[in-house]
Amino acid sequence: SGLVLVKNPHLDLMEEDVLYHLDLGTKTHNLPEMFGDIKFVCVGGSPKRMRAFAQFMRRELGLAGPGEDVPDTCGGSDRYAMYRAGPVLCISHGMGIPSISIMLHELIKLLHHARCRDVTIIRIGTSGGLGIEAGSVVITDTAVDSSFQPRFEQVVLGDVVVRSTELDKGLAEELLACSRDLPDFPTLIGHTMCTYDFYEGQGRLDGALCSFSSEKKLEYLRRAYDAGVRNIEMESTAFAALCGLCGLKGESRGFPLL
Amino acid sequence: SGLVLVKNPHLDLMEEDVLYHLDLGTKTHNLPEMFGDIKFVCVGGSPKRMRAFAQFMRRELGLAGPGEDVPDTCGGSDRYAMYRAGPVLCISHGMGIPSISIMLHELIKLLHHARCRDVTIIRIGTSGGLGIEAGSVVITDTAVDSSFQPRFEQVVLGDVVVRSTELDKGLAEELLACSRDLPDFPTLIGHTMCTYDFYEGQGRLDGALCSFSSEKKLEYLRRAYDAGVRNIEMESTAFAALCGLCGLKGESRGFPLL
Repeated sequence: SGLVLVKNPHLDLMEEDVLYHLDLGTKTHNLPEMFGDIKFVCVGGSPKRMRAFAQFMRRELGLAGPGEDVPDTCGGSDRYAMYRAGPVLCISHGMGIPSISIMLHELIKLLHHARCRDVTIIRIGTSGGLGIEAGSVVITDTAVDSSFQPRFEQVVLGDVVVRSTELDKGLAEELLACSRDLPDFPTLIGHTMCTYDFYEGQGRLDGALCSFSSEKKLEYLRRAYDAGVRNIEMESTAFAALCGLCGLKGESRGFPLL
Repeated sequence: SGLVLVKNPHLDLMEEDVLYHLDLGTKTHNLPEMFGDIKFVCVGGSPKRMRAFAQFMRRELGLAGPGEDVPDTCGGSDRYAMYRAGPVLCISHGMGIPSISIMLHELIKLLHHARCRDVTIIRIGTSGGLGIEAGSVVITDTAVDSSFQPRFEQVVLGDVVVRSTELDKGLAEELLACSRDLPDFPTLIGHTMCTYDFYEGQGRLDGALCSFSSEKKLEYLRRAYDAGVRNIEMESTAFAALCGLCGLKGESRGFPLL
């Protein structure tokens, strides 16, 4: 039916669903009216960038008035920022798996309550590139963990549950096809590695702690490259797992800075 | 010597250290002049709350002019917010271990470059309480993971390194002693459980996904209580591990809402 799924039998029994971190709720807001027409959700780490992206989308869609500001739909919360551009919802998710997970749980419930259909979600963010030209765009086919495995380990009541991190291959190909009109950005499809840490976890030599040599770092990154990894960031495995389970057609694009 | 330690031999060889996510650096800013007198660092998730906390501290310390605003010292970055109140530095860290880890790596380097001495760091945040009165303050003696173990598992180049999560017992006792002057807030010392997820990880029944019953949830939380856990949040193990390794006297206080 194309509806966004929640997989939680308890929700039906709740009189009210408060989306705490978005400062929205089923009793305080008319979610179908506010969000029922959403077809695309674009998410990224930084609130300022998501605001700039929403403004760009509004211009692209011919929706922007001159000098117009875009209001933050989660105005009462400073956990995330959310902007509308026609059928496109733009939301920031902060940094790391726990932060994006909270946002995605509440976003998925929001889209479910709003009875949205056939929603495509795309994560857009900076990332570290591996063996590719700086400024390239990597479209993720599969998110992998720090052992290069296509899995997301979710702890549920103290037990580890392993989830798949495959993304929509058709959508990845569609995005790649779009990129052919943009000659300035080399674009490729590859695996994206997701880590829990920016410094030690990604082999950076400039954190407060570093116990490894430059050679060990390069050896690790070479193994990642050989496993198909083309960029590294901090959210893609949780994004792929949650969107996959809830019927959101998902894709992650990274813009490597290194 | 009381100096904040970095444990990274590569840093001495770098001409410049850019603290990317704080929008500060050793060549662009005079860090000893800006931060050399810092003795306390208070960190919490939300930027607005840390701003309000800095304003409160400025009033408490007699530093606030009438109607005065406090400037954000990381003005150019929207990843974190940072405010000064005399010798107290107040910084937001977002939600979850990856987000606080990035901030702490850069904060520790900042305090090191600024040659700060005898710095005490306190995390202040809301948390879920376990078997205690709502509105209580939990002062953490030890941060534990979702298996109730006092450890933080850090992945370094794909390998798991286990780190201790003990916090400063003397500081916990000092904070408890302070609380005796505040009869409105029941205060206790206990273990704090740190999870990677707010919904499934903490046994909530209202996420987009929930595969367990109310009984299973209560059984897990009861086991946590029996292991000494009095509150649950999402940053304390990484906070304890990083601060402990870098010579910061650290403490975490949670304000349970449940």
